[in-house]
Amino acid sequence: METEFVDWLLSGIPADPRLEVAPGDDAAVLRPPSLRRTVITVDMLSEGVDFVLGGDCSAEAVGHKALAVSLSDLAAMGSRPEAAFVAVCLPRQGGDAIGRKLFTGIMALAEKHGVTIAGGDTNTWDGPLVISVTAVGSVLPGKAWRRDGARPGDLLVVTGAFGGSLLGRHLAITPRCREALAIAEQFTVHAAIDVSDGLSLDLSRILTASAMGATINLSKLPIHADAITMSRRPGDTRAPLEHALGDGEDFELILAMPPEAANRLVAASGTAMLNLPITIIGEVTAGQGLIAIDADGTAKPLETQGFLHDFQP
Amino acid sequence: METEFVDWLLSGIPADPRLEVAPGDDAAVLRPPSLRRTVITVDMLSEGVDFVLGGDCSAEAVGHKALAVSLSDLAAMGSRPEAAFVAVCLPRQGGDAIGRKLFTGIMALAEKHGVTIAGGDTNTWDGPLVISVTAVGSVLPGKAWRRDGARPGDLLVVTGAFGGSLLGRHLAITPRCREALAIAEQFTVHAAIDVSDGLSLDLSRILTASAMGATINLSKLPIHADAITMSRRPGDTRAPLEHALGDGEDFELILAMPPEAANRLVAASGTAMLNLPITIIGEVTAGQGLIAIDADGTAKPLETQGFLHDFQP
Repeated sequence: METEFVDWLLSGIPADPRLEVAPGDDAAVLRPPSLRRTVITVDMLSEGVDFVLGGDCSAEAVGHKALAVSLSDLAAMGSRPEAAFVAVCLPRQGGDAIGRKLFTGIMALAEKHGVTIAGGDTNTWDGPLVISVTAVGSVLPGKAWRRDGARPGDLLVVTGAFGGSLLGRHLAITPRCREALAIAEQFTVHAAIDVSDGLSLDLSRILTASAMGATINLSKLPIHADAITMSRRPGDTRAPLEHALGDGEDFELILAMPPEAANRLVAASGTAMLNLPITIIGEVTAGQGLIAIDADGTAKPLETQGFLHDFQP
Repeated sequence: METEFVDWLLSGIPADPRLEVAPGDDAAVLRPPSLRRTVITVDMLSEGVDFVLGGDCSAEAVGHKALAVSLSDLAAMGSRPEAAFVAVCLPRQGGDAIGRKLFTGIMALAEKHGVTIAGGDTNTWDGPLVISVTAVGSVLPGKAWRRDGARPGDLLVVTGAFGGSLLGRHLAITPRCREALAIAEQFTVHAAIDVSDGLSLDLSRILTASAMGATINLSKLPIHADAITMSRRPGDTRAPLEHALGDGEDFELILAMPPEAANRLVAASGTAMLNLPITIIGEVTAGQGLIAIDADGTAKPLETQGFLHDFQP
């Protein structure tokens, strides 16, 4: 019975002082941290589009991914994760077991990031698994990282490396929440986005929102080992660089920062505060285009690649 | 293209002073009303379970319903609606048209209740329509209506009438937001819930949460005309009273109130402040059972009826 599942779920959620009314009522009541803004994002994942259950992809992994992509959005705002709400359509067949695994994955990641599961909605149906996570964070007034704040002369900085996420990182996502908070505390960031649909596509979103252009040094792009592995696969016709630019689901951050801050940030990478690679990949320009510069200095327009969903008319 | 749909969507959302960062970024940034708590609820509806597209059920009606059920939860907390986030899986075939109608329905209801659409997530897939709405409200500290506050001697009060919602009201839901706010301002309410799964089942949820029992006067139950119509249909074997007790999707409120407040509330019904029927249907008792009293005074245990989802093992 679904009721038993919900009871099991509620019994596994620890009490949290941030909640005035805990899960189990018609809605949760949160005590918003005083003097902070509330940051909210929602992401919906569905079987067959965002994951295929079976093999490497357990329901636990789906739960992890569903929360991770929303936490990544909170990181991209420079905000602190606080709470999450989980709505699911579970397949009627085996839904109880799938639901329990799903929430095991969610709870493990939530605990890691200090997120309280504050509510949700559980449904069963004859369709595939659908999960929607609403993540709630907090940030100081005026301090959220927006997409539209990039300025000419800002350096473009990325965390981690890109490409080939389908080899496993598209499930085992590490949302950059802690790193974002550490950066937000000590460095000026003019604009930010997390890379879900592809490095070049998500970069173009910052530039469009900011009405700016950019030059990108292709030889500087941090290419993930997975991108190299993928490009060597039989039938794969794309170079590692193309994978890095267009694969998506890296869930790393792109930041537009004043040069001084960007350089200090690079110097701080690899320390305990920020234990991941930080790379300057280019510069924001006053123009509108996105220009790629080759290793030999040749400049040409960069076509954005990435994941766009299509409708059929 | 999905991008065009999202652009259309964003262009139709008016600016709102409650948002520091509006939809279109990685997350929305809300200015929480000072000295108020944040109330959050999420509901997911899916085609084939909560609605069947076609005939009376347009995509606009689905949009209306999806927001309405979440607003009803905010009403059941005695809270003021502020913002909503909408995540959808749209069918690839015709998804653009469905999406536009869906949001037309959402926007119309949002405007009516002063709700700003602050964000969402748009996906396409080869499955049926799935929509998840996260609604955000606000309430004074300690003033949210919980399920677990009913006390012995409280009267049980309901808004509106019950039963037969499938004849149309299950889509054309009127969430009792304004009524809830008017009641919260002027009357003491110890516990509340909105009726989604059935009057008797949702009433039992208040009683279970409060560790209380109740007596219900069956002759006092406000039975909707739709319940009578349904019971007269060929093949329908249930009396109007049974429809009222078990049909669900009435989205009326059940309130547990001190007798003085309950009586004053009944006297205030039908005024401009509260233009809907208010009925006292019973009383909270210190015991654990739910007892129904017939028109002739006979008392017997009331079996809860309502909508429970099932898993298959």
